[in-house]
Amino acid sequence: MDLRKNYRVKPNTKVKLKDYDPADVDGITDKAVANAVVAADQEKLTRLQYQLYAESKQSLLIVLQALDAGGKDGIINQVLAVMNPQGCRVQSFKVPTPLESSHDFLWRAHTVAPRNGEVVIYNRSYYESVLVERVHELAPKEEIEARYGFINDFERLLSFNRTKIIKFFLHISPEEQLKRFLERLEDPTKNWKISDSDYQERVHWDDYIKAFERVLSRCSTEESPWYVIPSEKKWFRNLAVSNIIVNTLADMDPQFPPPHVDLEEIRRLAVVEAAKAGLEFPRSGKKAD
Amino acid sequence: MDLRKNYRVKPNTKVKLKDYDPADVDGITDKAVANAVVAADQEKLTRLQYQLYAESKQSLLIVLQALDAGGKDGIINQVLAVMNPQGCRVQSFKVPTPLESSHDFLWRAHTVAPRNGEVVIYNRSYYESVLVERVHELAPKEEIEARYGFINDFERLLSFNRTKIIKFFLHISPEEQLKRFLERLEDPTKNWKISDSDYQERVHWDDYIKAFERVLSRCSTEESPWYVIPSEKKWFRNLAVSNIIVNTLADMDPQFPPPHVDLEEIRRLAVVEAAKAGLEFPRSGKKAD
Repeated sequence: MDLRKNYRVKPNTKVKLKDYDPADVDGITDKAVANAVVAADQEKLTRLQYQLYAESKQSLLIVLQALDAGGKDGIINQVLAVMNPQGCRVQSFKVPTPLESSHDFLWRAHTVAPRNGEVVIYNRSYYESVLVERVHELAPKEEIEARYGFINDFERLLSFNRTKIIKFFLHISPEEQLKRFLERLEDPTKNWKISDSDYQERVHWDDYIKAFERVLSRCSTEESPWYVIPSEKKWFRNLAVSNIIVNTLADMDPQFPPPHVDLEEIRRLAVVEAAKAGLEFPRSGKKAD
Repeated sequence: MDLRKNYRVKPNTKVKLKDYDPADVDGITDKAVANAVVAADQEKLTRLQYQLYAESKQSLLIVLQALDAGGKDGIINQVLAVMNPQGCRVQSFKVPTPLESSHDFLWRAHTVAPRNGEVVIYNRSYYESVLVERVHELAPKEEIEARYGFINDFERLLSFNRTKIIKFFLHISPEEQLKRFLERLEDPTKNWKISDSDYQERVHWDDYIKAFERVLSRCSTEESPWYVIPSEKKWFRNLAVSNIIVNTLADMDPQFPPPHVDLEEIRRLAVVEAAKAGLEFPRSGKKAD
């Protein structure tokens, strides 16, 4: 199964989000089946991540964007948390600090970009500079207009350095957002996440949708595609995102590097020493307790 | 169960590692039971980490040190990987880069110290400056001597800022190390990890032990204790480390912060809007699909 084609935004197309059904489940109706598929994909994901880390020649940058309650934290906690934290890093982008604001808008993202072998997840990203900043007119219009090109240049730079970038827009309806806010209000372990602005931002829903449509229309490239993920059903959202990441990593085809030392020589020395110490030579594949 | 007392190094005691049995299992003989205990502790760990992250007033720094093949990567992958990567970060300390070397020896550790709410794992740490650098005389003796005090000062600074520091020495015998090296030689997915230096460092075993004894004798404090973990049995090592971390976090007692907004007012607005939209008000605790 490869869901990439279904949800990838073709480069240079004018995206209208009303053409995308946030409740789409691609014909899959059984949640239990979907969860089993996600579990299987997570095993592949951990295996591929380990090989990427061992290979240390390329890297993966996962960008998560959504309106509030769209499921960014859910994707991290329910899908991506299976990865080994050694080699996987989450970077959250909040309101820029004074230091961050005193640089160009890509600076803070660049400083925390993946190094070879790493998977890095941006929970929000430099795209906020053409989303919230556009909706609230936090920068001059011409400046914001210029940013789409700079973003494409930046992503081309990272791609050229063997960082594969995939970008997810987690798509929900305003009704679903409201339902999730109401749930948060009822859940004492989630109350702390509620801010006034979450709720107040709802009046700007249409502006955000327009801003996202601009992003999707201008910044989805062959190399660094955007995916619009129907996220109303959390189990389908998890399925689609894990499927797309696994397929992307599989295409990257990370390989264990050849040993950079003379294994035979080390084995010879180690076996001699083990024999002297009266140690049994472990059988192939036998693990210590 | 609280294993902290068993394996904590009392401040200002002269540690001799021959007094610590690396194969100790604290009377637990059933590996399956131990693994079940670890699984239960991992649930507590994820719950406590979430509360620490929500609270965002204190943080936890876990320092892992060991001789090669002692199990640092194993602890991260088998025990600590259950944490949500959002709020948990692994920092590996390798041979210092030229930039790092052009600062004082604590600089690079300080730049990546935990922020409020975070759990950070140092895979190796600033202690390398009194371990490998001492064994290989990479700095003048007087300078290395001075470092223990600077380390204690640094840890006091972090503690004062509500960072709880716990430090684990994963203790194995040289025979166990040799066994693990031989296993790595047999495992094609681990061959890439083998470097000449791993094997060659074995001749310095006794010097490393002495350097560790100095660290444990001088840098275990009430606030920031060292623990010597018997690590010959991986299942017991996992049990001891997860038990100590869970007990430490439980003592830190992180609390969900009170909501910083008027939940009643938001609820009122949201319910009105939901009614207008014809949405059913979700029952308490009912989750979206």
